[in-house]
Amino acid sequence: MSFSPDTRVDLDRFWSTIEASAEIGKGRPGGLSRLCLSDSDREIRDLFVAWCKEAGLSVSVDECGSIFARRDGSEKDLPPVLIGSHLDTQINGGRFDGIAGVLAGLELVRTLNDTGHVTRRPIVIVDWTNEEGARFSPPMVASGCFVGVYDKDWVHDLISDDATRFGDELERIGYAGDVPCKAGEIDSYFELHIEQGPILDAEDRQMGVVTGGYPVHGMRASFAGQTAHTGPTPMDLRRNALVAGARWLSAVDDIGWEFAVYDGKATAAQLTAWPNKPGILSESAEAICDVRHPDPVTARAMAEKMRRAMFAAAAQAGCTAMIEDEWTWGGDIFDAEMVAGVREQAKRMDFNWRDIQSQAGHDAYFLATHCPTAMIFAPCRGGITHNNNESCDLGDFVAPVNVLLHAAVSRADR
Amino acid sequence: MSFSPDTRVDLDRFWSTIEASAEIGKGRPGGLSRLCLSDSDREIRDLFVAWCKEAGLSVSVDECGSIFARRDGSEKDLPPVLIGSHLDTQINGGRFDGIAGVLAGLELVRTLNDTGHVTRRPIVIVDWTNEEGARFSPPMVASGCFVGVYDKDWVHDLISDDATRFGDELERIGYAGDVPCKAGEIDSYFELHIEQGPILDAEDRQMGVVTGGYPVHGMRASFAGQTAHTGPTPMDLRRNALVAGARWLSAVDDIGWEFAVYDGKATAAQLTAWPNKPGILSESAEAICDVRHPDPVTARAMAEKMRRAMFAAAAQAGCTAMIEDEWTWGGDIFDAEMVAGVREQAKRMDFNWRDIQSQAGHDAYFLATHCPTAMIFAPCRGGITHNNNESCDLGDFVAPVNVLLHAAVSRADR
Repeated sequence: MSFSPDTRVDLDRFWSTIEASAEIGKGRPGGLSRLCLSDSDREIRDLFVAWCKEAGLSVSVDECGSIFARRDGSEKDLPPVLIGSHLDTQINGGRFDGIAGVLAGLELVRTLNDTGHVTRRPIVIVDWTNEEGARFSPPMVASGCFVGVYDKDWVHDLISDDATRFGDELERIGYAGDVPCKAGEIDSYFELHIEQGPILDAEDRQMGVVTGGYPVHGMRASFAGQTAHTGPTPMDLRRNALVAGARWLSAVDDIGWEFAVYDGKATAAQLTAWPNKPGILSESAEAICDVRHPDPVTARAMAEKMRRAMFAAAAQAGCTAMIEDEWTWGGDIFDAEMVAGVREQAKRMDFNWRDIQSQAGHDAYFLATHCPTAMIFAPCRGGITHNNNESCDLGDFVAPVNVLLHAAVSRADR
Repeated sequence: MSFSPDTRVDLDRFWSTIEASAEIGKGRPGGLSRLCLSDSDREIRDLFVAWCKEAGLSVSVDECGSIFARRDGSEKDLPPVLIGSHLDTQINGGRFDGIAGVLAGLELVRTLNDTGHVTRRPIVIVDWTNEEGARFSPPMVASGCFVGVYDKDWVHDLISDDATRFGDELERIGYAGDVPCKAGEIDSYFELHIEQGPILDAEDRQMGVVTGGYPVHGMRASFAGQTAHTGPTPMDLRRNALVAGARWLSAVDDIGWEFAVYDGKATAAQLTAWPNKPGILSESAEAICDVRHPDPVTARAMAEKMRRAMFAAAAQAGCTAMIEDEWTWGGDIFDAEMVAGVREQAKRMDFNWRDIQSQAGHDAYFLATHCPTAMIFAPCRGGITHNNNESCDLGDFVAPVNVLLHAAVSRADR
């Protein structure tokens, strides 16, 4: 039986799940503070699993805690179409970032149930654990492990800011699953997400067809100095690691401004020092910075500047520097045929869309290394995100969720 | 009965108290980590009190926990001569900073007991609470309160880095005394301290006659920004408070270098930001910096630059800045007659001494606002301090402790 091209999702029903989610792990007014593997993460997971079971889906949990809710296809053994995102948030997060993508998948399944349509391939809705990296750094570890970038034991041994272990917290909230965290054959992956940037809203677009991501280069550096008295120690004998860190952060911010005219960005994200107290020079510091630019060659040049600035900052402070970790993501990573499929549905339903590059990292980036992947962006007010003032209304999801429905079903019926 | 000018302290006995103290609150090899109002602070206080009682002193504790051990004079009602310093240390501190001054006072009293000499004026040995400010900021609050700069309730309400209250911790370790923290009439104050700088050691001097302190100007600033996503937020919409703080610290370090040729110094001491996590721009930051210079006018000019740099750093990061606290100390604060008295004893005993300015803050700075005050410096290896490698040997104290003995007794017999 073919799927009617006129089918539309029930936006009110979708919205009611967004609102129910927004009751769990409330943060500042209007926002959420639902950190990964916290009690509120357990609560939203429990609710999501209940919804999935109500919708007739079979639920499994993998070793990294990611939840997979499967709707069988008429040909059960075909590789499935995955649709996912994440239910965790930043410490001062909004109610849409990630959440909208998971719940759009749920709404898609409910709509299929309403119509009685059985797709040829199975459809699996996914909630990826720890997309945000706000409690356990780095972000996106579960999707990374799923595609083989990270090792499961390494993920389990991550230590949070509050000194808990990833694996222990998984156990504690009851989401240490037994399904190996290892992607089998997958037909394709779709992720709907809010843009987290100002472009769609400024241009009054109903949705974005994501063609790829700004190349991002990130770095975690450590600086080693020596404690000494803040008073008598002459400037040329000081080895203040806090100064090394501060100088690096300042230099990285300068790099951002240097490339800002073509939308380059640099972020001084984190700086910690020890002892970091008045009266004593700091012996050690650790810092995380990243740079991004729409053009990959320029992004690499910015990364090289960031790296040199790190050593220069250390030298200026009489300290030594070490790169503890480096990462990169983004580029033209999405599948041309998948992207074309999304674009085609947007055109067919006559939505006001545009091609767009993602500037944030997403689980889709990891999935794209494993299977054909596409992303769909919903507009959000002013691009404000990672902030309790993150804001969307129901209308922002008309185009993205319906395009997701038809693009994914058309893929699953292939 | 006059006091024999040939009397000398028992350096071995003094050294044994230093060694006993070095067993309490051990930190890294050779050093101490005896934070104010911790269990180890209680332990050294108990030992010090026991020693004082053994020496026949009457011990009292004031409302800020400072310990006063009194040896009566022949004229009990005359204002006393105070001799003091502190028994607390930095988190990675040494075994002499502060401690040597308190225990030199104890040795002085023991020597007086040996000779049977009763001074005309009473002599009081003092351990000032929280000189270091390493757990409860700012430093020197108890001596500050003693001379009326701080209010007792304000001191009690200070919150430590580990979220405890000063007044509660005083109670907990049993040193919440009932003597009002308010200086009565005091004849004079002496403080012996290690130099905490390289000069005496480099010049092979046996001691320093402290004429005053480098003027210091310090500032605690807060920066207010806004959380946002580290990815899509354009540079000109960012309000990253961590960048504001880092830029200020870098600028303050630059100020130090600008004035380094005449021994100016600037310290970026502390920076904390929130949320200070990858993926999100920081909404708030707080930082502490200070500048110091031997010349008071130049020190003020450096402070003015530091203040301007704070607002400039905030503006560059799209943030606002506020001065939360400001302080200054140092200058030619010591009493000419007291300083001359110390110098005279050094000359008389033919020690190799020099006049010197202190570069660190000391309780003596506060006492100097209330009564004639002098300080005596002992050399320490390479000026290393606030570090477990702080190092002195017994010989470093021959001149300082004997000069302290005769200068103080001569003052007390006046």
